[in-house]
Amino acid sequence: MSKLKGNMLIAQSGGPTVVINQSLVGAIIEARKHKEIKSIYGALHGVKGILEEDFIDLKKESTSNLKKVAFTPCAALGSVRKKPDEEECEKIFKIMQKYDVRYFFYIGGNDSAETAHILNENAKKVGYEFRCFHIPKTIDNDLRESDHTPGYGSAAKFVAMAIMGDNLDNRSLPGIKIDVIMGRHAGFLVAATSLAKIYEDDGPHLIYFPEKPFIMDKFLSDVDKIYKKYGRCLITVSEGISDEKGQPIAAKFTQEIDAHGNVQLSGTGALGDLLASIVKKELKPGRVRADTFGYLQRSFPAIYSDVDAKEAYEVGEFAVKMAVSGDIDGSVSIKRKNSKKYSVYYEVVPLSKVAKETRSMPSKFINRGGNFVTGAFIEYAKPLIGKLPEIGKLKKVKVSKK
Amino acid sequence: MSKLKGNMLIAQSGGPTVVINQSLVGAIIEARKHKEIKSIYGALHGVKGILEEDFIDLKKESTSNLKKVAFTPCAALGSVRKKPDEEECEKIFKIMQKYDVRYFFYIGGNDSAETAHILNENAKKVGYEFRCFHIPKTIDNDLRESDHTPGYGSAAKFVAMAIMGDNLDNRSLPGIKIDVIMGRHAGFLVAATSLAKIYEDDGPHLIYFPEKPFIMDKFLSDVDKIYKKYGRCLITVSEGISDEKGQPIAAKFTQEIDAHGNVQLSGTGALGDLLASIVKKELKPGRVRADTFGYLQRSFPAIYSDVDAKEAYEVGEFAVKMAVSGDIDGSVSIKRKNSKKYSVYYEVVPLSKVAKETRSMPSKFINRGGNFVTGAFIEYAKPLIGKLPEIGKLKKVKVSKK
Repeated sequence: MSKLKGNMLIAQSGGPTVVINQSLVGAIIEARKHKEIKSIYGALHGVKGILEEDFIDLKKESTSNLKKVAFTPCAALGSVRKKPDEEECEKIFKIMQKYDVRYFFYIGGNDSAETAHILNENAKKVGYEFRCFHIPKTIDNDLRESDHTPGYGSAAKFVAMAIMGDNLDNRSLPGIKIDVIMGRHAGFLVAATSLAKIYEDDGPHLIYFPEKPFIMDKFLSDVDKIYKKYGRCLITVSEGISDEKGQPIAAKFTQEIDAHGNVQLSGTGALGDLLASIVKKELKPGRVRADTFGYLQRSFPAIYSDVDAKEAYEVGEFAVKMAVSGDIDGSVSIKRKNSKKYSVYYEVVPLSKVAKETRSMPSKFINRGGNFVTGAFIEYAKPLIGKLPEIGKLKKVKVSKK
Repeated sequence: MSKLKGNMLIAQSGGPTVVINQSLVGAIIEARKHKEIKSIYGALHGVKGILEEDFIDLKKESTSNLKKVAFTPCAALGSVRKKPDEEECEKIFKIMQKYDVRYFFYIGGNDSAETAHILNENAKKVGYEFRCFHIPKTIDNDLRESDHTPGYGSAAKFVAMAIMGDNLDNRSLPGIKIDVIMGRHAGFLVAATSLAKIYEDDGPHLIYFPEKPFIMDKFLSDVDKIYKKYGRCLITVSEGISDEKGQPIAAKFTQEIDAHGNVQLSGTGALGDLLASIVKKELKPGRVRADTFGYLQRSFPAIYSDVDAKEAYEVGEFAVKMAVSGDIDGSVSIKRKNSKKYSVYYEVVPLSKVAKETRSMPSKFINRGGNFVTGAFIEYAKPLIGKLPEIGKLKKVKVSKK
């Protein structure tokens, strides 16, 4: 079998992660090993850079610098939130031909898989020989066909650590604390806050997912119960929690306020502030506070999961290997081996299977009350984030009163 | 000189820091060396625990466990936001006498120094032999008499790292980003975000302090200028930014909205959301987002400054040494030596000098435009936070267009 010869183009898309550059560097370093690949181009800011022919020469980057870049958060090539339409896809395809791009790698979520899929279909239609791969990344962990996605483990570690700290804060100064976690449609990230729990009375005490209807009265009674038991309550909620009709809680409340002619609560802190104000009004406890973790979850440097970093590198490397040696197209999926010790393998899955639709948390990961994870989730997530910091706690031997 | 014999009581107060337990453990381990100190009691939740005689026996804690506790964020004894009134101070003093407490250490901010001061005055009045120390802590860095305070270096490191990540995020997906940083009256913490800057075009591009009047039109023109130059703008603002009359921006806007009969914007995310909505409306750029870092700044585990951790331990240790051997009362202050290489020494300062009033950022640390720090601040702050993560950046050699 004679292998396809030509140039390679790689780009990054969508929300950043802490390990997205691992995949980029894994792909570049692997590509350099194959003589079939002549130039290695990087497009700046995803499809935007392709449309503008804004390319850089990745063969000019030193290996030692690439290794630093691998451990640096966020898209080193720049990213974009853009799904090209049909016309743009045709334009992109023409640019690929002009630059003799025979190998294309797009690092991103399901939208990037779809873009790759359309480009690949275009190539097939006109008989242009072209190898096209989607390299997965998303902190939401919502790509189909994979056990988990690169980027998730590190974001999960960050939120678990943040909640470890916030639990200690809440223990120091007891009250009700609500933390809003990323993940508009999938609850995997908010679920990972459960990994912060070491002692029985540690928070998070309650977790709310976008997959389960959020009923305000049930929420208030849940919080009240915990607050009465521990004198404090630490709650994590997904930014995407919605009511029985699937209407996001934040938006719903905004509309209710709007009906009274008032200001829109649509900012990033809005959901947390809203829940805090309702808890304050209904339960009348002491301190109630809310924090929204925001972009720190996907960009904070130096906090990453070793497993996640390694796998992110390997999916990039694997994609190039498969494209060159395997002569196939697709998306890389991570499969977990059915063994006692955590281990994975990579598989090529059709682009169409990863494109468009995403996945949610399986119901086996959410408890019956819809307000915490199950043991099955802990087992699933623990190996993905690796070691968490050790938390010291005083024995607290009481002195008898005089 | 015969040394004062009796029991020791130690407690923690105010908002947590990541190194507040270093001071606790430093004091306990030092206290164990002195035979004058019989029992070592810890009061749970500061003065609240003293009033309720809720004490634990700190001699029952193993050294290995204490060392773990030292590296654990937030008050291991529990904290409290309570400044006892005169009557309560008398009650506390009576409890001290009942438990034969001859050494009292209160770890906290200026309010804790004041409490210690009042208790000490009470003791003097009735001729009760009593050694009383305030051990400083605050992420705000606003205690008088000190070059800097334990807790600041670690919080400064956290916000600098957060902004390093957010700058990369903002570079990946360009737009206008506003981050709200703790520090209601002192701008030291928001100033520390400047340490995130490595390359000329790195954010934060603009920093706003509570010490300088925040003029909305000036702010908008500052942002517009940067946005036009770089196609993006990363701004950090102190939560306490106020107008020329000293009225907090968030509160001011709330009142303006209230006058129109609308909902109150008083939550934690309010200031960021408010600024983002004004920028969006006035400058009409692409993406505008805001994040409020919240409690993560004072509680996130494993991210601490080595210098800060060491000094926090040493101020606890020094307070006990001085109380026992020096036979004096006071607050521990950190003084910086006038030498090329960073080094400090500790001094006992009168409690009254640290109590009540706090300090702000000296004007030499703020630039003329009131929208960034000076080189003098960078020089001041750099040794306090220690090493930051290495950030890799592609060389980006452009490919010529075909």
